[in-house]
Amino acid sequence: MVIILKDGTSKEDINKLIEQVKSFGVEAKLTEGVGQTIIGLVGDTTRINRSKIQANKNVDRIMSIQEPFKRANRRFKQDDTIIQVGNAKIGGEVLTMIAGPCSVESEEQIVGIAKEVKKLGATALRGGAFKPRTSPYSFQGLELEGLELLKVARAETGLPIVTEIMSTDMIDVFEKDVDIIQVGARNMQNFDLLKQLGQLKKPILLKRGLSATIEEWLMSAEYIMAGGNENVILCERGIRTIETYTRNTQDLSAVPVIKKLSHLPIIIDPSHAAGKSWMVAPLSKAAVAVGADGLIIEVHNDPTNALCDGQQSITPEQYADLVEKLKVIASVVGKQMN
Amino acid sequence: MVIILKDGTSKEDINKLIEQVKSFGVEAKLTEGVGQTIIGLVGDTTRINRSKIQANKNVDRIMSIQEPFKRANRRFKQDDTIIQVGNAKIGGEVLTMIAGPCSVESEEQIVGIAKEVKKLGATALRGGAFKPRTSPYSFQGLELEGLELLKVARAETGLPIVTEIMSTDMIDVFEKDVDIIQVGARNMQNFDLLKQLGQLKKPILLKRGLSATIEEWLMSAEYIMAGGNENVILCERGIRTIETYTRNTQDLSAVPVIKKLSHLPIIIDPSHAAGKSWMVAPLSKAAVAVGADGLIIEVHNDPTNALCDGQQSITPEQYADLVEKLKVIASVVGKQMN
Amino acid sequence: MVIILKDGTSKEDINKLIEQVKSFGVEAKLTEGVGQTIIGLVGDTTRINRSKIQANKNVDRIMSIQEPFKRANRRFKQDDTIIQVGNAKIGGEVLTMIAGPCSVESEEQIVGIAKEVKKLGATALRGGAFKPRTSPYSFQGLELEGLELLKVARAETGLPIVTEIMSTDMIDVFEKDVDIIQVGARNMQNFDLLKQLGQLKKPILLKRGLSATIEEWLMSAEYIMAGGNENVILCERGIRTIETYTRNTQDLSAVPVIKKLSHLPIIIDPSHAAGKSWMVAPLSKAAVAVGADGLIIEVHNDPTNALCDGQQSITPEQYADLVEKLKVIASVVGKQMN
Amino acid sequence: MVIILKDGTSKEDINKLIEQVKSFGVEAKLTEGVGQTIIGLVGDTTRINRSKIQANKNVDRIMSIQEPFKRANRRFKQDDTIIQVGNAKIGGEVLTMIAGPCSVESEEQIVGIAKEVKKLGATALRGGAFKPRTSPYSFQGLELEGLELLKVARAETGLPIVTEIMSTDMIDVFEKDVDIIQVGARNMQNFDLLKQLGQLKKPILLKRGLSATIEEWLMSAEYIMAGGNENVILCERGIRTIETYTRNTQDLSAVPVIKKLSHLPIIIDPSHAAGKSWMVAPLSKAAVAVGADGLIIEVHNDPTNALCDGQQSITPEQYADLVEKLKVIASVVGKQMN
Repeated sequence: MVIILKDGTSKEDINKLIEQVKSFGVEAKLTEGVGQTIIGLVGDTTRINRSKIQANKNVDRIMSIQEPFKRANRRFKQDDTIIQVGNAKIGGEVLTMIAGPCSVESEEQIVGIAKEVKKLGATALRGGAFKPRTSPYSFQGLELEGLELLKVARAETGLPIVTEIMSTDMIDVFEKDVDIIQVGARNMQNFDLLKQLGQLKKPILLKRGLSATIEEWLMSAEYIMAGGNENVILCERGIRTIETYTRNTQDLSAVPVIKKLSHLPIIIDPSHAAGKSWMVAPLSKAAVAVGADGLIIEVHNDPTNALCDGQQSITPEQYADLVEKLKVIASVVGKQMN
Repeated sequence: MVIILKDGTSKEDINKLIEQVKSFGVEAKLTEGVGQTIIGLVGDTTRINRSKIQANKNVDRIMSIQEPFKRANRRFKQDDTIIQVGNAKIGGEVLTMIAGPCSVESEEQIVGIAKEVKKLGATALRGGAFKPRTSPYSFQGLELEGLELLKVARAETGLPIVTEIMSTDMIDVFEKDVDIIQVGARNMQNFDLLKQLGQLKKPILLKRGLSATIEEWLMSAEYIMAGGNENVILCERGIRTIETYTRNTQDLSAVPVIKKLSHLPIIIDPSHAAGKSWMVAPLSKAAVAVGADGLIIEVHNDPTNALCDGQQSITPEQYADLVEKLKVIASVVGKQMN
Repeated sequence: MVIILKDGTSKEDINKLIEQVKSFGVEAKLTEGVGQTIIGLVGDTTRINRSKIQANKNVDRIMSIQEPFKRANRRFKQDDTIIQVGNAKIGGEVLTMIAGPCSVESEEQIVGIAKEVKKLGATALRGGAFKPRTSPYSFQGLELEGLELLKVARAETGLPIVTEIMSTDMIDVFEKDVDIIQVGARNMQNFDLLKQLGQLKKPILLKRGLSATIEEWLMSAEYIMAGGNENVILCERGIRTIETYTRNTQDLSAVPVIKKLSHLPIIIDPSHAAGKSWMVAPLSKAAVAVGADGLIIEVHNDPTNALCDGQQSITPEQYADLVEKLKVIASVVGKQMN
Repeated sequence: MVIILKDGTSKEDINKLIEQVKSFGVEAKLTEGVGQTIIGLVGDTTRINRSKIQANKNVDRIMSIQEPFKRANRRFKQDDTIIQVGNAKIGGEVLTMIAGPCSVESEEQIVGIAKEVKKLGATALRGGAFKPRTSPYSFQGLELEGLELLKVARAETGLPIVTEIMSTDMIDVFEKDVDIIQVGARNMQNFDLLKQLGQLKKPILLKRGLSATIEEWLMSAEYIMAGGNENVILCERGIRTIETYTRNTQDLSAVPVIKKLSHLPIIIDPSHAAGKSWMVAPLSKAAVAVGADGLIIEVHNDPTNALCDGQQSITPEQYADLVEKLKVIASVVGKQMN
């Protein structure tokens, strides 16, 4: 942390401030020059009450240097986190493939798709039961009934199931029934939900918020991990930018950044990022090439009649074709698919 | 709604699609030309399952024309909504002033500030009890104890209290104890929370999300209103943009836009937008000049020792000075202050 | 400037780096701690070749502390810059009003509008002769003929003229004929143009780029000032954000920021920011309330038949009405209008 | 194009408006319903003066349907454009590799790097002679001397040279000496420069502006093509978003979008997007996987002593290693490298 002082701060006030920050147990060193005085701090600066320092009348501003996340930080855990889900591993040298429809619609639909993607080597089945929709008048998912259908599909195929939680009220149900609990982009900073998920042992798939920086995203992972649950899978699903042709802009550069800053696995959701089915294949190839640990893709056997997001779903045939190409690219970056 | 068809769609497929959309009870008219065919739809197009239409193989894309919000829409309710809180009214010709500290710290602090701002004509007292913090390691508020202290301050001054709810678990407590329930920017699309707040009668102060469009913000209001609670106060607190000098960019143009699109009152939070106390006064003046229905401002008797956001709080003296200037500007735009 | 070193950098390498930066004539002080080492630099750090330091294998990253602009910096010139244009002054306690059509269309049009706005106290006449249009197929302005018509309007009313330069090829013509040379948002970082304008004495109205930070904008002013021309007027015309209802988002918080960082005058263009005529009046009032030094507004006697931007132009009647209200607000913030 | 009318527009006014738009030679069809009336237009709507329609007092707003670009539009030219540069082709099944230093520093430097990258199969040599720098006090390039050194490197290796033009004043020199003329991101909407480049036959490498939408970028290509020069190569170099860890956010989804909308080749610049050398390799692999026609990469033999952007340059060794991996990925997407 660096404290930039206002011009004309007295020697006495500077010394008082240095004493104050040292009381938090950090090292502080003054650098003075014409028209500028700064205090450099090193050590565990997360202990410092920033608000108090910033409100000091002699402080112009504060700049952070240290990353504010600890448990998610690769600096403190060098090895990749590998998360066990049923028989599958997520992270490390594995390329995880999660596939399934936007929302669960019927037993026939979800079981049918589950069988198709299982055959093609998918690691897990996705499917929305509780749907976060911008409009209260849109289809909100089959809710508990949808969850039951996902369980049927799991029983038939052995695939672990991934589905989104929308409320702390549902935590008990999800802990019992769901294999990977998804936190949606809109709830990435629903801190109360994150805290309660931190009490579980279940893997959490944490989607990046629409305008969340990588640091904020890792801080949300930190909320879960601080509670004791270190099984966090990050998922990039596009950020909101000035481009309006695509629904969101897939930030693939987040992959090498996360790999540098954190030991957590990161997967890519090209379906929601682009919002267009014909962009899913090229973005998936790019995601694997850039080093992602996996993909979560919307696959629907009948996109034209899907109850939601049909325009961004690919068919099992397109999915099969894509998988073949991803295998070659995976080999270039040292990853293996099922 | 306008459906843009792909080149080469057959007459038969076009007719089938027109029949399909008409089955939702809307008017549909075809416009054909060289290299382009579109279908114009009018009526209540919110009834249409957009996903199905978008996934149709002949559909290039869909463009919305109608605003998707109904109860929040000025088209369907011309008069300004005026919300009663205790003896105070919010909306219409009233300029509402909500003031208080970032977080409740002690009885002395909150009661002291409450008395100061009451004297200066404030309509309500703000103060955080449950605090949404980016880091799990930061001060999270005094929680229930903070709520008790707010009630003491209310008892001493008669000021209604405004404080943020972070979880559906707290709805009963907030319904009983809080006068205006605040939904924070990070929970603007926590749809489960919005739905449950829609079951109450209490006024809801709905902050705009960091990257929410005005339409999305009104759709979140719609979630609350669809449940039966029409007492929604919108609050602009800055959006995330490319500018990094200010914490967020206050979007004052949202005020005339909201006034055109909706009948709901809108207030401005300059403290969180700028993140710097010296910007609170100019932004507050601009907010009143642009036509806002009120302000929510962080006031602290001792910013240097505030437990959070001290750098953006103004003192009661600065607040008093500001109020005098706002009165003149309010008169230019047809508003009255207490 | 602060240099953050990589973990494990040797004492020797640290000392070598400190010698290297000291050779640029700045003070450097080391702060060491567990897992983090930083070097704080004060003095004229703009002399340092940042690229070389950043590419050093031991450097994790660099953080700037000092503002990179010098001549535009209020730190080095406390008093407001006041720019003389004909009999008018821009900056200080004056509220400047620049008005006129988007583009010059005919002698009758430009002279007619000039007379109207002159009567209402305008300081200068705006009008586009060379128009930057997104499409090569749109009307590109009357070009040199438009400039001649502006000169006629100036001769008839005495109003100085403001118009946009699009190319260095036109510098001689603009120097001779134009009173305030406008640099458009799209050319804000056309550095060659800025350098050549720095050789003139004419006032330059420098619009903010669509996604330019305040710092970059001031650096573009610095380009002009570094050449010797200190007559720079900054103009905020909205930035591109996630909001799409308005054409751009007017960043009114830029006004207090510029006032703090720089001594240059700043005016607001509400017409281009919002792109809607009904938003011009509220945004103008807000601009004056927030402390701007003036406004540049599109006024057209017949918006429906304007050759460009008719939808954002107000009529002379609307302008007259607005001016009355601005006078009251100006008095609150210590400004005077003609 | 769709015209949305205001509520309560009279039959007569509607008919007048329909006549008006039909006079531009397009088809117009009315769709009426309760509370909403729209006019659908098809045909060459670029002929319509939008400004006039938008300013019509009965018009609520206009929505575009047709892409505004013509010559750049794949709709009107199905086959990929392939651009000949010396013996090399850019576009189609070729994967173009352009490599070289940020700026030309000396004969030894530029010739040395040119030989290295030539050996590794590069298609062309990049190197800045005129540098667009945010600060007037930064190194501005060797200018004409740098251009001479690039010519020496070309003579020694046979590699065509790519370098940036900053001003229309330099067009004659660039036409004579440069093989591919680069337009930088900051000049993407320097329309005067684009128009003059449209008069040449030389290939133009058009970088995307920092906050340019894909449509605006293609409209800038259209400016060049409208003048007669159809040799435009698009180059994505990152857009400005809310993420601040990377210098810009590489928008790889732009590649499939451009491929759908246009026949022009598109290459990726990972060096400027990320601003960090360790991200160049993963982003390059992703760029090839997503379907780009090539890469432009900063390669420097001594990044630590580079005069600019050393932190984002890779060494010839790293470049060689990358090329091997790209060959495999290229084969998956049907591309061939030298």
